[in-house]
Amino acid sequence: MTPCIVAGRANSALAGAVAAALGGEPVPAVVERFPDGELRPVVSGLRGADAYLVQPTSPPVNDHIMELLLLVDACRRAGADRITAVLPYFGYARQDRRGREGQALGVRVVADALAAAGTRRLIVVDPHTVALEAICSVAVETLTAVPSLAAALGEDVRDAVVVAPDLGAVKLAEHYAALLSRPVAVVRKTRLSGTRVVAEELVGDVRDCPTVIVDDMISTGSTIEAAVQVVTGHGAAPRIVVVATHGLFVGPAAERLGRCTIQRVLVTDTVAQPAAPSLPLGVCSVAPLLADAIGRLHRDEPLDELLARP
Amino acid sequence: MTPCIVAGRANSALAGAVAAALGGEPVPAVVERFPDGELRPVVSGLRGADAYLVQPTSPPVNDHIMELLLLVDACRRAGADRITAVLPYFGYARQDRRGREGQALGVRVVADALAAAGTRRLIVVDPHTVALEAICSVAVETLTAVPSLAAALGEDVRDAVVVAPDLGAVKLAEHYAALLSRPVAVVRKTRLSGTRVVAEELVGDVRDCPTVIVDDMISTGSTIEAAVQVVTGHGAAPRIVVVATHGLFVGPAAERLGRCTIQRVLVTDTVAQPAAPSLPLGVCSVAPLLADAIGRLHRDEPLDELLARP
Amino acid sequence: MTPCIVAGRANSALAGAVAAALGGEPVPAVVERFPDGELRPVVSGLRGADAYLVQPTSPPVNDHIMELLLLVDACRRAGADRITAVLPYFGYARQDRRGREGQALGVRVVADALAAAGTRRLIVVDPHTVALEAICSVAVETLTAVPSLAAALGEDVRDAVVVAPDLGAVKLAEHYAALLSRPVAVVRKTRLSGTRVVAEELVGDVRDCPTVIVDDMISTGSTIEAAVQVVTGHGAAPRIVVVATHGLFVGPAAERLGRCTIQRVLVTDTVAQPAAPSLPLGVCSVAPLLADAIGRLHRDEPLDELLARP
Amino acid sequence: MTPCIVAGRANSALAGAVAAALGGEPVPAVVERFPDGELRPVVSGLRGADAYLVQPTSPPVNDHIMELLLLVDACRRAGADRITAVLPYFGYARQDRRGREGQALGVRVVADALAAAGTRRLIVVDPHTVALEAICSVAVETLTAVPSLAAALGEDVRDAVVVAPDLGAVKLAEHYAALLSRPVAVVRKTRLSGTRVVAEELVGDVRDCPTVIVDDMISTGSTIEAAVQVVTGHGAAPRIVVVATHGLFVGPAAERLGRCTIQRVLVTDTVAQPAAPSLPLGVCSVAPLLADAIGRLHRDEPLDELLARP
Amino acid sequence: MTPCIVAGRANSALAGAVAAALGGEPVPAVVERFPDGELRPVVSGLRGADAYLVQPTSPPVNDHIMELLLLVDACRRAGADRITAVLPYFGYARQDRRGREGQALGVRVVADALAAAGTRRLIVVDPHTVALEAICSVAVETLTAVPSLAAALGEDVRDAVVVAPDLGAVKLAEHYAALLSRPVAVVRKTRLSGTRVVAEELVGDVRDCPTVIVDDMISTGSTIEAAVQVVTGHGAAPRIVVVATHGLFVGPAAERLGRCTIQRVLVTDTVAQPAAPSLPLGVCSVAPLLADAIGRLHRDEPLDELLARP
Amino acid sequence: MTPCIVAGRANSALAGAVAAALGGEPVPAVVERFPDGELRPVVSGLRGADAYLVQPTSPPVNDHIMELLLLVDACRRAGADRITAVLPYFGYARQDRRGREGQALGVRVVADALAAAGTRRLIVVDPHTVALEAICSVAVETLTAVPSLAAALGEDVRDAVVVAPDLGAVKLAEHYAALLSRPVAVVRKTRLSGTRVVAEELVGDVRDCPTVIVDDMISTGSTIEAAVQVVTGHGAAPRIVVVATHGLFVGPAAERLGRCTIQRVLVTDTVAQPAAPSLPLGVCSVAPLLADAIGRLHRDEPLDELLARP
Repeated sequence: MTPCIVAGRANSALAGAVAAALGGEPVPAVVERFPDGELRPVVSGLRGADAYLVQPTSPPVNDHIMELLLLVDACRRAGADRITAVLPYFGYARQDRRGREGQALGVRVVADALAAAGTRRLIVVDPHTVALEAICSVAVETLTAVPSLAAALGEDVRDAVVVAPDLGAVKLAEHYAALLSRPVAVVRKTRLSGTRVVAEELVGDVRDCPTVIVDDMISTGSTIEAAVQVVTGHGAAPRIVVVATHGLFVGPAAERLGRCTIQRVLVTDTVAQPAAPSLPLGVCSVAPLLADAIGRLHRDEPLDELLARP
Repeated sequence: MTPCIVAGRANSALAGAVAAALGGEPVPAVVERFPDGELRPVVSGLRGADAYLVQPTSPPVNDHIMELLLLVDACRRAGADRITAVLPYFGYARQDRRGREGQALGVRVVADALAAAGTRRLIVVDPHTVALEAICSVAVETLTAVPSLAAALGEDVRDAVVVAPDLGAVKLAEHYAALLSRPVAVVRKTRLSGTRVVAEELVGDVRDCPTVIVDDMISTGSTIEAAVQVVTGHGAAPRIVVVATHGLFVGPAAERLGRCTIQRVLVTDTVAQPAAPSLPLGVCSVAPLLADAIGRLHRDEPLDELLARP
Repeated sequence: MTPCIVAGRANSALAGAVAAALGGEPVPAVVERFPDGELRPVVSGLRGADAYLVQPTSPPVNDHIMELLLLVDACRRAGADRITAVLPYFGYARQDRRGREGQALGVRVVADALAAAGTRRLIVVDPHTVALEAICSVAVETLTAVPSLAAALGEDVRDAVVVAPDLGAVKLAEHYAALLSRPVAVVRKTRLSGTRVVAEELVGDVRDCPTVIVDDMISTGSTIEAAVQVVTGHGAAPRIVVVATHGLFVGPAAERLGRCTIQRVLVTDTVAQPAAPSLPLGVCSVAPLLADAIGRLHRDEPLDELLARP
Repeated sequence: MTPCIVAGRANSALAGAVAAALGGEPVPAVVERFPDGELRPVVSGLRGADAYLVQPTSPPVNDHIMELLLLVDACRRAGADRITAVLPYFGYARQDRRGREGQALGVRVVADALAAAGTRRLIVVDPHTVALEAICSVAVETLTAVPSLAAALGEDVRDAVVVAPDLGAVKLAEHYAALLSRPVAVVRKTRLSGTRVVAEELVGDVRDCPTVIVDDMISTGSTIEAAVQVVTGHGAAPRIVVVATHGLFVGPAAERLGRCTIQRVLVTDTVAQPAAPSLPLGVCSVAPLLADAIGRLHRDEPLDELLARP
Repeated sequence: MTPCIVAGRANSALAGAVAAALGGEPVPAVVERFPDGELRPVVSGLRGADAYLVQPTSPPVNDHIMELLLLVDACRRAGADRITAVLPYFGYARQDRRGREGQALGVRVVADALAAAGTRRLIVVDPHTVALEAICSVAVETLTAVPSLAAALGEDVRDAVVVAPDLGAVKLAEHYAALLSRPVAVVRKTRLSGTRVVAEELVGDVRDCPTVIVDDMISTGSTIEAAVQVVTGHGAAPRIVVVATHGLFVGPAAERLGRCTIQRVLVTDTVAQPAAPSLPLGVCSVAPLLADAIGRLHRDEPLDELLARP
Repeated sequence: MTPCIVAGRANSALAGAVAAALGGEPVPAVVERFPDGELRPVVSGLRGADAYLVQPTSPPVNDHIMELLLLVDACRRAGADRITAVLPYFGYARQDRRGREGQALGVRVVADALAAAGTRRLIVVDPHTVALEAICSVAVETLTAVPSLAAALGEDVRDAVVVAPDLGAVKLAEHYAALLSRPVAVVRKTRLSGTRVVAEELVGDVRDCPTVIVDDMISTGSTIEAAVQVVTGHGAAPRIVVVATHGLFVGPAAERLGRCTIQRVLVTDTVAQPAAPSLPLGVCSVAPLLADAIGRLHRDEPLDELLARP
């Protein structure tokens, strides 16, 4: 028996590609939307199944979360034997700590709601918080798209310097650098003395080099824009490539990145990408990665090198 | 110490009115919305508090549910002693049974997520499912706005017949009828024989009488529209009043109700109503009801006649 | 491997019939009763089993509930892989709402105790509350005996009118009416004006017609008795048949129904029926229905048309 | 504020005595019993209360357990702040281990159902299993009536030997002996050799002495009857007193004990005793003990010497 | 597929013997110990496995408990299908009751932590508390090594009297006595009168007989030492054998037992025994017992006579 | 009423100082250690209390964790109203992610065991994982000792450069730098090209400057030793100060740090420090910080600036 792929509406194309890679089709799942915005899914053929619900919680994030909760509930009541929620992009992952008294921890709220609805296991790709496995009550398999993306960069990055646009991205940059056999440079806010703050500094040498700016996700594009300015200011060659696992491109992102002289923006399809993007966008699908992982889990094999090594 | 009213964004005016009726103001609570649609609330002054979070889960229902879950989490982590979620309108309440195999039970999903986030008790008003108390793990106080609405109908309904627009509304109609000392008529789909189905039949006499069509909620207005046609077809007087606790008015509701010759539509503010509605809308606030209930709960007094008697 | 049917003492004949229909016998289960009334079950042969515990919680309801809880516990500790409690009749189902402050919600108490003891899933037949699935934490499969009962009515109901003895039974009556291709009439308490209350009114025409009074259960028979009086008062033919899924016949039921001129009372064996009843009782077994459902669940097939459509 | 005593029907006289000892009356609680045997309690005045539900789970044990669960549920939903179930006699306490594969553990089933219903703490008196505190998820205060009973024995036991009727009662006998400053004798089944089994042996000397046979409970009286025969056979004086915390007297107990030449049977009122017993029965009330314990718990004082020392 | 035996560090030799008896080897499991004492296990090959983690919680008990919790967590996250913790010796089992107000119940703390970490079932051997099954939330299979030990005693105990060193060991002594067809004697603290306490008394005759002193565990050896003195004082033959399931031999145990004239001390390897003990120690392995039980559980067969009969 | 401080054995001096700062003494709590290593605490005077259990889980970490779990259990059973576990040092905090398949997540195991035992809230100081709040089910208040330590550095750090010994410490270094108005330098492993790896690089200028090397904890001292070598190699002045919240000093730490030319090592007493250390150790107590936080929590006041801002 093959694993049952259930497609949520957030990225049904990805779910279809995953199912195809596993030699089948997604099981029928229809999510009705009522005039008042309430959702009602109907699934079928899931009794006794090893079910994988593919639903990134990308924007509109709250709709996608509720839809996923309802799908999990529907699968559970329909008799699915084991329910794995596949969130290629996990929304609210930045809320893993309180910045100050009175805030919420959104990532835990989502994790607990998923568990309460009947989720038995999660599959995620390059989540924003490294502690996601410990935050969730159920087991989490944390995959990484970095090797696929590094391979997809191809000749574009020959002789390039890998650039981390902030300190939080340094480990990621080092992962890319190791795969590409290239050096790393880091953009950071430096405090040169107690009174003088320099907003953005570059650690490492990019002069006359192509650069690959890497991040886990591109949201409004502001971090990337600032990094482009810094590397340009430090004499980087105009061949700038941006790579990230998750391309949300919300708000002014397209406009912002459009006005940077970026040669190529490479993301995956963890978040559904428009057919005709306004950017020089390359999309590297995570469908093979997810299909590989799901196939192994279904056959009780180790995931090994598919996993992120934080 | 007075109870702490926390206002979500779904109906901050109602929360303010409740707090005012209790002699105070809502505690400061700010919900930030990021460009990617994620919400992050910040509350303060809640340590040790008896907190009441006022948030109907009206459309956009999924946003309002997630916001409520995050608010509950924020209040819990901020040290609130007891957290009561006040949902004057409880979304997804129609999903209390599966119409067929493979469906979800949305009301239970919401109830479980609320409990998982740390809610200790719920206050609701005229929920669509009579079993809501048994569906929720935490205690639920089920208030009713029917006496307030009946009182607000005033002289409009002198000599009127109370009309239930379908069988599900008969008990509600009888509640109104008892308060107004008026008779009841019922619209129903009748099956006169095995082969002949009459879509809408009227049980009871409305000829030349004003009518008060009652329901728990008005969503797209289709049920009301059909009822108006039936009572008109049975010779009711043109003085038709519609009354419901929850006025969602989604999709074509305003247009639909506008083309009926309705004298007045009376609802409460469980769902925030626009300042300048396109209908002859009367709004009867549930703020006194909620404030009364919250005050009694805070002082450990019985709720008695505030409760719905299903 | 066939599913393991475990027979509680409440209706061991039904359990035996279910097992026989599945081609086997109930697994050995003995429930010892001590002089102080405490029960102690012993089960065997259940390690790794897909176990179905057949136990309606009919009167003596509290004994039957405790016995079921103990059986679930025994099965769980004996290593049963999956425990499905089969309650053809679910006691306490009327307590799904509080009629006033200070009451208990018995249906939830029972549901939670079943889950706490280790029940993984429930199978019920025509439960009194439509929200039972949402009230229980575990998955519930809600079967209906209505098609079997309708078929068993046979020629008795040719030309008959289906009568709902109160508003709560209208949907049920319409289900029968659709299966029998017959019209519906409804007995209800009508309020003709604010001051004049008529206890029982009949909506629909039964003059000179045979009638089939339908309800989900017959407890003390008072509802049926009143309905017989109403239809007789409206000129119904003396050929009155009563049909219900659950025949409890407690207290004065036999006497009451005996003095009505009822041609036949048709129930199922969800509740064990006496070998020599004092009524013109027909019993239509739910064993085929339960066996069909259990067989499908065991083979991971859809239940489809076996399910109630509320 | 005084603690709120809620009386179940199992022993309302005891509940009344406890409340009186605390200077008040039980709060109104009515348990309705429907013709089908279902129970429905209604409580009032419990919002915010520190509630103590007095309900021994004596025979009919299953009815009393269900009633207690429903009462706990009613109190929780009525807003009681803290719910302590007071089970002066805890039924099913012998089922704390499985005698063989396939049995249930009744004591855990009851404990889990109580916790699931919302019980926050238990008060018990001399439970049959010493591990009850570890078996329950919630905190348990284990009181002992032994000092009261020992004091109530009075002059009857001057010069007497305390007799444990089996090995399980030795620790109890030693507790009495220490309080009474008397020696202990033990009845036990002895195996004198591998092939010869002597049913009942007496360890210790009772010749010409009055005896006090002690046990935690008297159920059918068979253990006591056997002990009387052994001590009589060993030349004990005819002045035999029997003392136990719990007097269930089920089945042939009264007859059995009646034909022994027992001078006096002393029990407490943990189980309600008939007004006119057929035995020379002395009843020593645990109401002062329970009232003392409840008063201390309500005032946050240590229980100290009220507790059993196992 | 064979069951997967996972060896903790507490008794890897036993785990190896169990795996060998089942025809395999333990799965690779490495527990790293950091300089600060924190442990980190790594397991592999467990996806979908029926895993049995062999780890007695013998001294250093807290290290062994934490290691077991971490192993359970690692197995759960690695995708083991069913996790059975095998604790041949269960530490903290004496803390099943509070001796006085303010104490902890260690056995429940350990049981709850095991369940929280993801343990699905326990296998234990001759635990100190008979109520362990009721104390644990998950199912417990309670094996007994007594038949194996009794068989291993062999000719040593011909003509011997089985001696229970205290009242708590009487049932155990009777179990041995039945298997060996020998009589029982009991050492106990007797209270001959209210004022005169004799520390240790012997019930039964051991004069000129060899004796077998039996207990569930030997900790510091003080109980055994006292029993040796009593039986010697009552003229027992110098051929004294001591037998117990668990040989902890902590503190002065070796020295104490060494100075008694004990012919042989027979224990099992539930606790790892030193290669070169200072005592005349015989070790009877429980590996066959555990392998038999695990094999049956894995094949869904009854455990029957392997279980302790309390 | 003042809050009740309960002292575990891990750092009773700190608990005493906290209690003193709050104007009282720790409540009596004795932890008995048996010869087999099992622990048994006894607490008293906690009924109704707002209890704060002070127990860092420093080495021997597993003993300290088990002791804390037992203390929580004892407090819960003794009737404490609210139990806050105060772990100034939280062991196993590094295990918040799996480095590879098959590892455990120690931090979650500890967090779940604490919650299962009855902990209601945690107070921690500068935990190693920033996501600790989201990892724990119960609310966590995350305090920081950085302001106290920065103040305690005093004149030693005039003109100094704050050095982060690895990337993980940069945010911490920036926190110190902001408080001290000094610049930051960072030691990091740099990859200059794809093939050439330089183990330790320094970002920032320390030539001829005093340096303050900061970290959250000092375990074996290897990170600090490496950082000293780097800054020395880059011409730092010989005035090197090391500051960290947690001083574990395990294994070769004292020797290692001793052979560096460190002027002063400043830590707090979250971990109990020896009276006569072998290092030039300064200890800045967190007792005022903890007392301030506990006092505010007890009085329901905000913690505000006591909290870490991650």
